[in-house]
Amino acid sequence: MARLAVVMGDPAGIGPEVLARTLAEGLTQDVLLIGDADVWAQAQDVAGVRVGLIPADRPGSPAGGAVPFLPLPPEDRSWTRGAMSPAAGRAAAQWLVAAVRLALEGAADAVVFAPLNKQAIIRAGYRVRDEYELCAQLAGVEDHDEMNVIPHPAAPASGRLLWVARVTGHAAFAAVPAALTRERILRTIRLAHRVASGTSPTAPAIGVAALNPHAGEGGLLGDEEERLIGPAIADAAGEGINASGPVPADHIFRQARAGRFDVVVAMYHDQAQIATKLLGFEMGVSVGVGYPFVMTTPSHGTAFDIAGRGVADARPMRQALTIAGRLTAQADAGR
Amino acid sequence: MARLAVVMGDPAGIGPEVLARTLAEGLTQDVLLIGDADVWAQAQDVAGVRVGLIPADRPGSPAGGAVPFLPLPPEDRSWTRGAMSPAAGRAAAQWLVAAVRLALEGAADAVVFAPLNKQAIIRAGYRVRDEYELCAQLAGVEDHDEMNVIPHPAAPASGRLLWVARVTGHAAFAAVPAALTRERILRTIRLAHRVASGTSPTAPAIGVAALNPHAGEGGLLGDEEERLIGPAIADAAGEGINASGPVPADHIFRQARAGRFDVVVAMYHDQAQIATKLLGFEMGVSVGVGYPFVMTTPSHGTAFDIAGRGVADARPMRQALTIAGRLTAQADAGR
Repeated sequence: MARLAVVMGDPAGIGPEVLARTLAEGLTQDVLLIGDADVWAQAQDVAGVRVGLIPADRPGSPAGGAVPFLPLPPEDRSWTRGAMSPAAGRAAAQWLVAAVRLALEGAADAVVFAPLNKQAIIRAGYRVRDEYELCAQLAGVEDHDEMNVIPHPAAPASGRLLWVARVTGHAAFAAVPAALTRERILRTIRLAHRVASGTSPTAPAIGVAALNPHAGEGGLLGDEEERLIGPAIADAAGEGINASGPVPADHIFRQARAGRFDVVVAMYHDQAQIATKLLGFEMGVSVGVGYPFVMTTPSHGTAFDIAGRGVADARPMRQALTIAGRLTAQADAGR
Repeated sequence: MARLAVVMGDPAGIGPEVLARTLAEGLTQDVLLIGDADVWAQAQDVAGVRVGLIPADRPGSPAGGAVPFLPLPPEDRSWTRGAMSPAAGRAAAQWLVAAVRLALEGAADAVVFAPLNKQAIIRAGYRVRDEYELCAQLAGVEDHDEMNVIPHPAAPASGRLLWVARVTGHAAFAAVPAALTRERILRTIRLAHRVASGTSPTAPAIGVAALNPHAGEGGLLGDEEERLIGPAIADAAGEGINASGPVPADHIFRQARAGRFDVVVAMYHDQAQIATKLLGFEMGVSVGVGYPFVMTTPSHGTAFDIAGRGVADARPMRQALTIAGRLTAQADAGR
C-alpha cells in the first residue's frame, strides 16, 4: 500500500480546506499529514468536516477515523488568510521539507502537497525558483521536470489519463527556439514515456507537437520540425517508444481529446497550458518528474481570493492523492 | 436584404456537397450561386438533395425553389474528386474572381465561398499565397486580415459569437517576436473591434492575450507585455474600445468560454488556433477583414479524404452564410 506524506500547503490559501474535505471522504492509502493543528482546526471549520488526527512520525492507516499526523507548529503565525506572506510561505516550506526528508529516508513513497505559493516561499528566504526546485535541492537532483495530468477527455470517468509534458517551461516566448534541441526533445519524450507508463496498461501513445503553424508547412514556416522534432521522434521510436508527430498544435489536442494519445509532448508552456486548461483544468494534477520519489500536487494555486469561504473545489486535491497512489503502485510493481 | 455571391469552392472537395445541403435547407438572403452545373448535379447526388437553379447574373431570391445561378463552366475538368489538382484550383479561383468582381461592382454585399485549396490555386498559376490574397489583389487592398468566429461557448444557441483575431498569422514561431509591434497590435484590436461590433448589440468586450507564459511575470519571462501589448491596449482604450489585458494565454480562453469576452486578440497563429479548434471548430467560420465587402467561408478545408461520401458536416457552410448576412445587415445599418 502506498505511503503518502501529505503536506497542508500554504496555510493562507485554500490548501488546508480542500485537504480537510478530501481526507474526510476517506482514504485508501497510508498517509502522514504534515502541518499544524490550529491550521487544521480552522480548515475543518471552513470545510464543514471533522477529521481527527493522531500523532505519528510515519505514514499509516487512519485508526478509528483519526489520520496519522506530524505536527510542526510554525514559530511565526503572522499571516492573514487570503494573502501572500513570508510567514505562511515559511510554514508551508518547512512542512514540505519534512515530507521530502521522509521520502528520502524511505519512510514515504510519495510526497503530495496542497498548493504552495512560490512568491511566499521566496520571500520567506528560500533561494529557489519554486517548490519544485526546493524539492530538487533537497533530493540532490538537477534534472527534474513537471508534467500535468488530467482525466482523459475521451473517457473522463474510466481512470484513463491524459498526460501533458513540456520540452521548455518557464521561458520567455522569444527564448524558446534556442532552447529546443533534439536531445532535449528526446529527453522529454523519454521522461513522459516513463511516467505515463506508470498509469497506462499498455505502452502509452505519445503525440509530439510541432512548434510552427501547420507544423512548418514543409519548411515554409520554420524548420524546427524537420531539423529537431522529427529526428527526436525517430530517436524515441528507435528506442521502442510509441511516439508520433510532429503534429500541428491546433490538431494534436483535438486528436488527444478524441482518444488518440495518452500523452502530448508540447514544445512550450502556453502550447501545453492553453489546451490543458480548456480540456480538464478542473481536475488537473501536476506531477514532479526526475525525483527519487513520487510527487504530486493539484495544478491550481493557493486561490487566495476564495480562501476561507468554503467554496473551493476539492476534486483536484483528491485526484493528486489518487495519482500518487497509482504511480507508487506501479513503482512497487517494477521493483 | 443581404445580397450574397456564393462560390462553389474547389469542385474536388466537400465544398459543393455542403453547399447543396445548405441551400436545400432554405435561404433568408438573396444569393447568386457561382460555379458549374455538372459539379452541382454531382454535389446534389452526394448530398441527397435537389436544389433547382435559375440562370441569373445578380443575387436574387429563390423563385419557386430555384436558386439564382451564374454558370461558369471550366475549360479543363481533369480533376478527380478527393485529390488536389490545378484544374480544380483554376475552376474554383475563376468562380471566386467572378464573385469578387460582382462585389466590387456593388452588385453583391458579400462573398461567401465553400472551401478552396490554396495549393491547387497556386499550382493553377495564381501568384498568391492563398485565396485571401487573391481577393485582396482583385480588390486592391494591402492591409487585410482574417478572423475566426464561432458560436459563443458560453451560449452557443443564442446567436452570440466569439471572435478570435491574430496579430501575426502564417509566420514561423521564431519570427513572431520581431513581427509584433505596438502599432500592429493596436491595428488588430481596432479591426477586431470594428468587425465584432457588426454582430454585437453593445461594444464588444475584447480580451488581448499575452505573448509570454504568465504574461511575462513582471518582466521575468519576457517584456513584450510591458513594452508593446500593454501600451497598445491603453491606446485602444483611449479610443473608446473596450479592450483589456494582457491576459495570460492559458487563462484568456477559459475566461472567454465563461462569457467574459466577445473577442480574443491572440498574438500568434497557434495561440488562437489551439483554443478555437477546441472550443468550436465544428461551427468555425473565417471572415476576411479589410476588404470593401463582407467575406466569409467555413474554417475547415476541402477535406479531400471524405469528399463525395456525403458525410461532411454542412453546419459551418450554413454558418458562413448566416454570419455574412449579419455582417451585411450591420454594414447597411451603418450607411
